[in-house]
This record gives sequence, C-alpha cells and structure tokens, in this order.
Amino acid sequence: MTDLSQIKDDLVTANRVLAYHHVVDSFGHVSMRNPENPNHFFLSRARAPNCVEIGDITEFTHEGKTVGHEPGKPYSERFIHGAVYEARPDVMAVVHNHSPNVVPFTVQSRRKFRPIMHMCAPIGTDIPTWDIANKFGATNLLVTNMDMGRDLAKTLGPRTVALMRGHGSVVAGKSLRDVVFTSIYMEINAEMLIKAYQLGDGDIVPMSDEEVAANTKGRAGFTYERGWENWCRLVNRPYYPSTWEMGPGFSKTDKSGL
Amino acid sequence: MTDLSQIKDDLVTANRVLAYHHVVDSFGHVSMRNPENPNHFFLSRARAPNCVEIGDITEFTHEGKTVGHEPGKPYSERFIHGAVYEARPDVMAVVHNHSPNVVPFTVQSRRKFRPIMHMCAPIGTDIPTWDIANKFGATNLLVTNMDMGRDLAKTLGPRTVALMRGHGSVVAGKSLRDVVFTSIYMEINAEMLIKAYQLGDGDIVPMSDEEVAANTKGRAGFTYERGWENWCRLVNRPYYPSTWEMGPGFSKTDKSGL
Amino acid sequence: MTDLSQIKDDLVTANRVLAYHHVVDSFGHVSMRNPENPNHFFLSRARAPNCVEIGDITEFTHEGKTVGHEPGKPYSERFIHGAVYEARPDVMAVVHNHSPNVVPFTVQSRRKFRPIMHMCAPIGTDIPTWDIANKFGATNLLVTNMDMGRDLAKTLGPRTVALMRGHGSVVAGKSLRDVVFTSIYMEINAEMLIKAYQLGDGDIVPMSDEEVAANTKGRAGFTYERGWENWCRLVNRPYYPSTWEMGPGFSKTDKSGL
Amino acid sequence: MTDLSQIKDDLVTANRVLAYHHVVDSFGHVSMRNPENPNHFFLSRARAPNCVEIGDITEFTHEGKTVGHEPGKPYSERFIHGAVYEARPDVMAVVHNHSPNVVPFTVQSRRKFRPIMHMCAPIGTDIPTWDIANKFGATNLLVTNMDMGRDLAKTLGPRTVALMRGHGSVVAGKSLRDVVFTSIYMEINAEMLIKAYQLGDGDIVPMSDEEVAANTKGRAGFTYERGWENWCRLVNRPYYPSTWEMGPGFSKTDKSGL
Repeated sequence: MTDLSQIKDDLVTANRVLAYHHVVDSFGHVSMRNPENPNHFFLSRARAPNCVEIGDITEFTHEGKTVGHEPGKPYSERFIHGAVYEARPDVMAVVHNHSPNVVPFTVQSRRKFRPIMHMCAPIGTDIPTWDIANKFGATNLLVTNMDMGRDLAKTLGPRTVALMRGHGSVVAGKSLRDVVFTSIYMEINAEMLIKAYQLGDGDIVPMSDEEVAANTKGRAGFTYERGWENWCRLVNRPYYPSTWEMGPGFSKTDKSGL
Repeated sequence: MTDLSQIKDDLVTANRVLAYHHVVDSFGHVSMRNPENPNHFFLSRARAPNCVEIGDITEFTHEGKTVGHEPGKPYSERFIHGAVYEARPDVMAVVHNHSPNVVPFTVQSRRKFRPIMHMCAPIGTDIPTWDIANKFGATNLLVTNMDMGRDLAKTLGPRTVALMRGHGSVVAGKSLRDVVFTSIYMEINAEMLIKAYQLGDGDIVPMSDEEVAANTKGRAGFTYERGWENWCRLVNRPYYPSTWEMGPGFSKTDKSGL
Repeated sequence: MTDLSQIKDDLVTANRVLAYHHVVDSFGHVSMRNPENPNHFFLSRARAPNCVEIGDITEFTHEGKTVGHEPGKPYSERFIHGAVYEARPDVMAVVHNHSPNVVPFTVQSRRKFRPIMHMCAPIGTDIPTWDIANKFGATNLLVTNMDMGRDLAKTLGPRTVALMRGHGSVVAGKSLRDVVFTSIYMEINAEMLIKAYQLGDGDIVPMSDEEVAANTKGRAGFTYERGWENWCRLVNRPYYPSTWEMGPGFSKTDKSGL
Repeated sequence: MTDLSQIKDDLVTANRVLAYHHVVDSFGHVSMRNPENPNHFFLSRARAPNCVEIGDITEFTHEGKTVGHEPGKPYSERFIHGAVYEARPDVMAVVHNHSPNVVPFTVQSRRKFRPIMHMCAPIGTDIPTWDIANKFGATNLLVTNMDMGRDLAKTLGPRTVALMRGHGSVVAGKSLRDVVFTSIYMEINAEMLIKAYQLGDGDIVPMSDEEVAANTKGRAGFTYERGWENWCRLVNRPYYPSTWEMGPGFSKTDKSGL
C-alpha cells in the first residue's frame, strides 16, 4: 500500500481497537489529521466503529466539508474534530467517546477525575468539564456545528482531555497510537478511580503534576508499539510497525541496548 | 422474503441482540405489533431469546390468544405485551426484561432512575415503579393475566418505561429498532448512574426535561441504523437496511448532504 | 445412551454451564444423587469444571468412598456433598462454589443476603452463614472430612443455601437443573443486591416470604427447560429435553394450552 | 522438547494465562529463575504478554544484563525481577502487574488489602505498599534501575506481595504455577474485598493469620495442576503435567487414595 492507504488502514484499526476496549460502542469516533495537508482530517462516514472499512474513510476540511470521495452521510458531530484541529496545530489525532466509566464523572463535581496509575498519566491533572448548556442552552447535547465545536475546543485549551457533561469526552493526541492509548487508559483509570474513591472515602493519592510530567515526557515509540501490536492481534487487523524510538524522557539509567 | 417474513426475521434478530447486550438472559422477551393488523402482535413461543428462530414467532391477540401457527407453549407473561398494545396505539414494539443494572433501582426509592447521558434520553425523566403487590397482594411477581397487564399498562401511561418492583421493566417503542435501542441504553445508563450517584453522594446533574425532549425529537432513522447494522454483525444475523431519514429534530446546522 | 450415561452427560454439562456463568472457576463442584441408589452420588474426580469429561464422573458413598471406577484423585471437599445427601433425602443435586458476588456477603453481617428479583426466589429469605471456626478452630477453611460436612449440613438444615464464611456456599436442589438454576441466579442476585444496598443506603424492599413461597411453588419444568436449552447451546453441549410440566403453582389464569 | 525449552514454553503460557485473567494487559510481565543457574532469570523481551512467543524469552543476570540470545529491547522494569531474585533465594518466579482491582488499594490507606477467601490466602495478612517517591522523589513511577528494584525488594521483605503506589504490585512465588495462581486470586480477592468493605461499611472478617498459614502450608501440587490444566485449555496452550504431590499440610483426614 502507499503511505496514505496504510494511514487510512491504521485509522480503521483504531476504530476496531476502541470498540474492542469498550471506549466506543456503536457510537463515538476517531480521526487523524491528513499528514500531507494539515488543514484536512480523515474520519469515517457515520458508521459504527466496529463496522468501519477503508472505503468509509472521508477527508474533511476543519469546517466539516467533505473533500473528494463521499461514501455516505458524515457524523453529525465531526465538528468536534475539526474545531480541535483548527485550534491545536500540535494535535494529530482526536477521539470522541462515551467511555462508560468516564461519563459518571461528567455529571457530578464532588470527585475530581485524576490519574491514579502511571499508564494513565497523559490525561493530566487538570481536566475541565464542558457543559454545552452554558452557552447553547437546552440542546440535544450533540456538537453539531462549528460554534459548538469551537466552544468545546476553547475549554479543552492546551490539554489532552475535556469531559463533556452528560455526554462523554474529547481526547487529543500527538499521533493515532497516542490518542488510542490515552483513550483506553482513561477508561481503565476511571474504573479504578471510582473504586479508589470508595475505598478511601474520597481520600486518595493521585499522581502529582511532576509525576504526570515525567511520565508524559518519557512516553515514547516503544511503549505505543507494545500496545498497538497487541491490539492489532486482538481485533485481527494487520500490524504496521512504527518507530520504536526512546523519547527524550526515557530513563537514562537503563543502559542496556535495543 | 416477503415483507412479513423479513419483519419476523428482524424480530429474531432483536431477540439475539438483546441477549448479546445482557438486557435479557434466558428470560425476558421482545414483541412487535403486526403492521398489517394492529390488534395482533408477534412474539416468540416460550424460549430463551438466544435460541429463538423464525419458526418460533407466534401471532397473538391483545388478550394473549394464539392466532394460527402454534409452535409451542407461549410466554406466561405475554399479557405485558398485549396490555400495552391495547392501551397505546402509538406503540409498535415492546420489551420486557430483567436488565441487571436496572433491577436494583426497582427495590429502593432513595435514588431515582434518570437519564444522565444523551444516548439514554428516551427513557424520559419521569419513570414510575409498578409494584404488583399494591393491587394483587402476595404473588410470584409474574404478570400472568390481562388484569395484571392492564394495571401495569396503566402505570406506564404515555411513558417509554415503567420499572417493575423486584422484577425488571417494560419498555415501549415506536419501532422494533427503537425499543431495542432504548432497552440497551437503559441498561448502560443504569450502570453509569449507579457509579455517578456513588461519586456524587447522590448529587448529580441528570438530563433536563428540555434536553430529553430535544434528543427524543431528533432521534431518527440514521441513528437507529448505525446501531442496528453493528448489532446484526455482532450476533451474526442478516442486516436489512431501513429508512435513513433525518427526523424533525435533526440539527438544521448540519448543512452537509447525505 | 442408556439413562445413566445420559445423566452423567448432563452432569458434565452442569459443570460447563456453571463455569460459563462464573459460578465456579477452576474450583467448585456439582454433584447429583444416583437415582438408582439414593445412598450414592456422582461427582467428577478433582478437576476444573470446565475440563470435566464423562470419564471423570465417579460414584461415591455418602462418606466419600469411591465405588467402582476410580479415574483419579477425588475432590478433598466431597464431604460437603455426601453430608447433605445423608441429611436431606429430598435433595437430588448439590453445588459447592466460590461465587464471586456471594463471597463478600459471607465476611460481613451488616447487610443480609436476600432475594430481590423473582428469578432468585429459591434461595429463600433465611440464609445462614456457617463459620468453620466456630467448631473446628483455625483451619485452612476447607471441608475435608465428614465431621465438618455434617456440621455444615446441620447449619443448612431444610434450606436451599448456606453461606460459608471466607469461602463461598453450598446449594441444595431437587434436581440437577434446579441446583444449577439456583446457583446461577444466586450469583446474579448477589451482584444486583450489592448495587441495591448502595443505592438505597441499605433501605431496600426484598421479596417477602409469601412471594418467595409463591415463586418456588410455581417453578416448574418449563422454566428449567428454557434455561437449560440455552445453556447447553452456550457451552456447546448436547441438550436432552426433560419434562415440561407446569407444576402445582403454575398460574391458573393462563388458559392457553401447551 | 528438552527440559529448558519446556520451561520456556510454560513461561509463554504463563504470559497468556495472566493476560486472559486481566492480571496483565499489554503491560506487566512474568519471569522465572533459571533452574540451572540461580543467578539468572528468564523473561520475555519488551512485548505484550498476549503476544509473547518462545523466541522472545531472554536470559538475564540479576542486574538486568542480557545473557546470550537478544531478541529485542528488554522491559525497562526488569529490575523488579532481578532485585527480588537477588534478595530472595527462595523465590523461583515473579509477576509484576497493574491488576485493575488491586491498583485502587495502592492509592489509599483507609481500607487494608487482606485475603477474605481461602483461595487467596497466599497474599498474606501483612501487605506493605511501596511508594517510589519516598526515596526517589518525583519520577515517572517506573522501576528502571537496580537501586529502585532493591528498594522495592526491601519493602517486599520475606512476603509474597508488595503493592506499589499508583502502579500495581510485585508478586513472588515458589514456582511459576504458584506465582500465576497467587496473581489471579489476588485480583479476584481485590474485587471481592471492595464489595465486602462496601457491604460491611468496612467491618469485615478477613482470614486470620492462622488460617492463612494453614492454607499456604496445605497448598500443594494437585491444587496448582487443577488450575493450570484449565488455564492452558482456556488460552489454547499445551499442558505439561507437573507433580501432583499432596504437600505437608494436606488434610490427613482424607484417607482416599490418589
């Protein structure tokens, strides 16, 4: 395959992997920026992630207009993706989900959503909740135009994750593997955190800002590959190896070679 | 297949899909009104939903009498379905279930059952609990005659869902896809809601009446199809595409074509 | 197959069905009384329920001595079964398990284990907890001789279930289908009940004694068959249909024929 | 196969079994001491446990240096294993995991982690939590050099398990089967214990020191084999039978032969 079709094939895989891990079910979606044109992004037509095939991948402008191939109706909420790509040149991939253990955090403010396990560090220690009602009043809670998308992207700011009240979350990443990784471990962290709050009666030790920074800095190619190879196998999809570099934060005490 | 056999085949699929999502196990059932005769409905003979085949589909009068083909003993609780069809001309499909995360809500009154995520909006904000003991005293809790069924239908009233104390719920829908969709997301909502109440010590933000109305109004063909195609694939059943219309409440800000 | 080999084949199926429903894992066991000799019972040799085959089924006296065919080491805890058959001529089948949602009830006394859903009625409203330490002091908690088995059977008395502190439970049934059915729905009830107690802050409405009695009386052949056919299919085992009778408590208001 | 390749094949199986039981996911690892050279241990190269094959098994010195065959980058946290083997001549196998129901216990101190079911006894009644920050300050929480590994091994001391704050745990065993068994039942115990604490409002009856001792002493070959045979089948791996001995603590009241 050419590079671009391999990229689209990886996007299909990302859909299946997120469905396998229950981050998305029949709803929710994952996109990636077109590496050859930063003003466009790739996203499936409106289809359940588990059913998405390479022919469903559509190219969009940030404003959600189809470019070229039109395999069918687009997701009504593609504006979530476009608005994040518009506001964040550093973001290369976006997931929108209704992750089942994350949603409970979006409808209450007594217990904060925080990372408690190192794999989940990239969600960060400052996770805002966007409430569509604040600016748009009584809606069906869906982000169906650029105004809404831009308001959500503003709440997201420079962060990795913004929760969406009564809905789910948006996750931004520096690569497709990164955003899938963060989404999966965000769900795992949420389930662990609910139990930790229960055991501790709310008194828990989340990761500190410094620990989160050290983890995020040190998250490199070999970590993503370990997950990605496994996930490809679990959903019966081809595995295209990617870079296996160590990253700037990789522990210098590890002297053994590759 | 003729239309009627395709309809029955979809009813078989509905049985399998509900079992796949643990809304029903060996017990619980789903019916649909006969579109050619509103005084009759289709329901399997008494068999586990996961085992139901097209030859098991039986036609009943509202009072639960078999019409024509009699493949075997009917469900003792078919009166739940008949009584709802009798009272509600707008209802085209009914599910009765013991959905595992919903049952806990039926035996306590401290925490209300409310939708907290937009996918689950159709359950509505006013969900009554029917207690068979109020009118019928100490029973085995089963709805085994029309008196009981009509009393339950009276509690249901114009709503989508009524909980049944120590038993489960009845769900009414405007189509087979609609009632399956609502039943699946009711279970998902219940599991999320138990966790939200725990995190918030009961202080949570459910969907408002206006948000529920906006969502229900906007729920249209393309939404049901996205789920239904995926579910057919997950249970290895044929997918018969249905209407893909947008519905009166579809966001007018979405200008992109189909 | 002759009747006895069909009975043993059903016992293999019972092992697989309980494993499928997570009532047992690599440990736990199910037995049935020899219908041709009430002083003997059938139980696998010491093997994980998911691995049990017909050649593993062994015949035992109540005291746990092997009769005839000796395929291998017997379960150390076969005395649980023998002691219950000895004390209870009405019991035809026994399950011992570490059912994961039941165990938490065995190590605390603040929340009682009670049926809250009609399918789970047979566990009854009076469920004792046997603590091996009361009579036998500090042990490894295993029931490894007849003294222990008889003490447990004494606590069980005429009931369906006795919990075992820090261990699990023993379930007695009038048939193999009955004891498997009760064990599966006991686990389901336990998971629902933990959630109900949480929602209601302990204030819940369990089934009443009268409701439990009505349900147990009305539980008849057709109910067991509906589950058993489905479970055989789920674990890929042959289904041998059994009686489909209505039982003395079957609702007389259901006038439709079989 | 020669003995050593059978041992490595069992190590592959251990990886798959732990992944099947969700003790590890794409991360976490299991090692065993080289029975022919107690100063070396076997561990896969850095790969998801579910993907590990026999060619990935690498031999390491306690200090984490590769010996011979180098199939690829080693796990950054192999020092956990080496430091435990160095400090504990009695330990023949080690698991490091992020077991999802155990992690919540590592970030709070209100509810102690204790065994409440006899299968889980080997975790012991005195389970320390190691906090990497106490000695190493703000890190990415990973154990990436021998200093860290030795500090963790010091906290572990003569015990079976040490929790790791915001991370997971290390489990030490007297054999590969033993360490896999303990890891699986530690996760099961953690899930049960969270529910028990909730039901009892913290007031529960854990196993006593004497009961734990009796259980651990009596845990012998036949117990491990019952689980191992089942697990090999569940993950579709070859089962190599091992010793079936009774152990010094096996109940002497069980007079029936093998």
